[in-house]
Amino acid sequence: MQLNLDRSLGTPLVQQLAEQLQGWIARQRLRPGARLPSIRSLAKGQGVSASCVIEAYDRLVASGWLVPRHGAGFFVAQRNTGLADDAGSVWSVSGDGRWRQFVEGEQQLLRLGCGWLPLSWRAEAELAHAIRQVSRGEPQALFDYCPPQGLASLRMQLHKGLAQLHIAAEPERILTTQGASHALDLLVRTLLLPGDTVLVERPGYYNLFNLLRQHGVHMLEVPRTRTGPDLAVLEPLLAEHRPRCLFINSLYQNPTGTSLTPKVAHRLLELARAHDLRIIEDDLYADFQDGPATRLATLDSEQRVIYLGSFSKTLSSSLRVGYLVAEPDLIGRLAELKMVSGIGTSRFAEQVIHQMLVTGSYRKSAQRLRLRLGQHRAAVLRQLEACGWEVFCEPSGGMFAWARVPGRSHAALEQLALANNVLLTPGSAFDPLGRDCDWLRINVAFGQDTRAQAFFQLAGRP
Amino acid sequence: MQLNLDRSLGTPLVQQLAEQLQGWIARQRLRPGARLPSIRSLAKGQGVSASCVIEAYDRLVASGWLVPRHGAGFFVAQRNTGLADDAGSVWSVSGDGRWRQFVEGEQQLLRLGCGWLPLSWRAEAELAHAIRQVSRGEPQALFDYCPPQGLASLRMQLHKGLAQLHIAAEPERILTTQGASHALDLLVRTLLLPGDTVLVERPGYYNLFNLLRQHGVHMLEVPRTRTGPDLAVLEPLLAEHRPRCLFINSLYQNPTGTSLTPKVAHRLLELARAHDLRIIEDDLYADFQDGPATRLATLDSEQRVIYLGSFSKTLSSSLRVGYLVAEPDLIGRLAELKMVSGIGTSRFAEQVIHQMLVTGSYRKSAQRLRLRLGQHRAAVLRQLEACGWEVFCEPSGGMFAWARVPGRSHAALEQLALANNVLLTPGSAFDPLGRDCDWLRINVAFGQDTRAQAFFQLAGRP
Repeated sequence: MQLNLDRSLGTPLVQQLAEQLQGWIARQRLRPGARLPSIRSLAKGQGVSASCVIEAYDRLVASGWLVPRHGAGFFVAQRNTGLADDAGSVWSVSGDGRWRQFVEGEQQLLRLGCGWLPLSWRAEAELAHAIRQVSRGEPQALFDYCPPQGLASLRMQLHKGLAQLHIAAEPERILTTQGASHALDLLVRTLLLPGDTVLVERPGYYNLFNLLRQHGVHMLEVPRTRTGPDLAVLEPLLAEHRPRCLFINSLYQNPTGTSLTPKVAHRLLELARAHDLRIIEDDLYADFQDGPATRLATLDSEQRVIYLGSFSKTLSSSLRVGYLVAEPDLIGRLAELKMVSGIGTSRFAEQVIHQMLVTGSYRKSAQRLRLRLGQHRAAVLRQLEACGWEVFCEPSGGMFAWARVPGRSHAALEQLALANNVLLTPGSAFDPLGRDCDWLRINVAFGQDTRAQAFFQLAGRP
Repeated sequence: MQLNLDRSLGTPLVQQLAEQLQGWIARQRLRPGARLPSIRSLAKGQGVSASCVIEAYDRLVASGWLVPRHGAGFFVAQRNTGLADDAGSVWSVSGDGRWRQFVEGEQQLLRLGCGWLPLSWRAEAELAHAIRQVSRGEPQALFDYCPPQGLASLRMQLHKGLAQLHIAAEPERILTTQGASHALDLLVRTLLLPGDTVLVERPGYYNLFNLLRQHGVHMLEVPRTRTGPDLAVLEPLLAEHRPRCLFINSLYQNPTGTSLTPKVAHRLLELARAHDLRIIEDDLYADFQDGPATRLATLDSEQRVIYLGSFSKTLSSSLRVGYLVAEPDLIGRLAELKMVSGIGTSRFAEQVIHQMLVTGSYRKSAQRLRLRLGQHRAAVLRQLEACGWEVFCEPSGGMFAWARVPGRSHAALEQLALANNVLLTPGSAFDPLGRDCDWLRINVAFGQDTRAQAFFQLAGRP
């Protein structure tokens, strides 16, 4: 392949590579189904990094020129002629790497920093069974719109489950959503105006930052410590800026894996009362709970906390089912927006979740995941320690460990990772401003893979 | 039951009734499962209309006090104690009647004005079969997030289907959405700012009006004539207000059932070019097409038309699958918002639709619906004519006829309808400002029901 990458140009190498690959496919009149060079051979041949090739291929996938095939590499897509001028146009989606993990790519790469559990861990038999049961049940589940607040029977089950966490959530205080991100979107659109100020944790959930930025909301950063948000930073921000709300993960925070201590939680609620602050508690790892845990919604006695839950992490990201708990007045406004902006959630998906809650198969499969996660977490923490990594705080549950190798930059780690077929998620992704960061989010569920183990060892300083 | 409704108060009767019923349930300490009086007996006992009782019951369902049961009436819900102060709070959802049809209620009422096909018509065997096939296929479909633009295989199928309508929609120009309303929401958020001006059809789709209002967008009304939007009104509006876009149903418009003629379509595109107007063509009844049809997206040669499709009307409202077609640059921005506001669509649902497209079972079931709709449409039109109704324009396809009885107000029609267990959707719902209107949207699929036939006859003027 004859490409002509020019490092002296202002155009990023990734963009040059993607554009020239596209031209090459067109010039060679490659037929649909033709296989492209492997990432490694193209990187070697052109003298660029593997991550540069991956990103170029991902862009061509996003723009419809290539299709990835499970374990086999990248292939020319059907009907890719005549697109030359348009193909670059969806780069904003994949171009900055944020959605890269969502685009299907070479399966030989281990996504060690991703935010979900391995496919092989999932409750495949149980979910497939529930789906088939619903498919044979009342036809309403297959065809009808869902009521505005969500399926009443599902809300009743959620209410019962939340009662076990000592969260008072009567069914009329629950609104179903298409996952926690959809709940955040409804809340941001309903509670905040452009120009409003809110508090976020640093490091924190990157999609929340994007959402707030998209809505024109100012973010004030509160460092996440080993025990929760840094209250010494929080208090003056409350007094000075009067932010509208705080977004927080109490348990197994994304990305640090830290959990709120009771002391910090109590003080946080006191401060919230004193400064009339709303708290949006995103508890999407709730069903991974391992041992005692402190939740703000459990302690809250004045409806100051809006609570979010989801089945995306503990069961399926595909079905898109989550929910939020708030006072009925706000639920009414959110339900109105939910209908206006999409005529509600999927009745079928909610019926499937309801089915798994009622039969207990969700509880059993979440328990199985929790045990397995616990074993993997312990093993990864042992290994990281043995290899000379620094762990921010030993997590007591959940998927994530926040770790670094003192003295090693992200770029150095990334290079070592790719050499071992490991794809990292940079720590900078979890910074509200995208600042460089030498910490990594490690998904412990992938840590026993031999590629991860080799990487931990090579990158570490024993 | 002792209630005390006071017509001299400013409080609407519906609200008084709902509040007093709630108090009565609490005072009587009615146990969960206790049956409430039938709509008819309560209406008679309290001297109010049946629609007033229905709305009060619907409010209590929405606020969690009551549950409806298939064909059997309304029953006290589980755990309804201590909610007295909150129960009214979700009224904004059901209170103005817009979402009333989405709240489950007494099944004995025929929803003659609703926007979907009868459950008994649906492709239950085919959809259930496709769901079971997907449940036994690749586990990714059950568990993984969907790529930002939607499942590539589904977009390829959509592309092929659109090619048969002569709409050039390469897969990278397609974005999947959770139905057409979600597509409209993404478009409004991406293309419009509060204070912008757009053109809508009158009468038109009420959820679009709500969405635009929610976003602070000004609506200019263009009357829908028998051949499409009234160009004599449109042209000066374009010159004077420079609206950003026009929202339109070309085929079988909701609610009038009228379709664009080729002449109007051509002139509309000329005007759009002259005034740099974007057109958002919502073609959600496309697969009901019966005979020749004129679409703007087919004629458009300059990517001025954004095209929307959906499977909600022709297959399932439960799965929430739709899509839009636009230039790749815009698709990239919309995909970004789609991810930020909800991390995408349901992979499972998209895989099921893909399955039905690939096997041809969607095409066959849509064809069956189309034939059946055609028979029902012809029969209803014959009967309306025989009963002295006026039909706005004989529709050539789709679900809707727009009809009235000259000289009969909506209130009079509603009363007659309820006496025959028929629930109407008022014509005012389709007016951007909610103005009174004596036209009704009639869903022809329900027109052969004996309740509808009795209503047509009694209300008509033979």
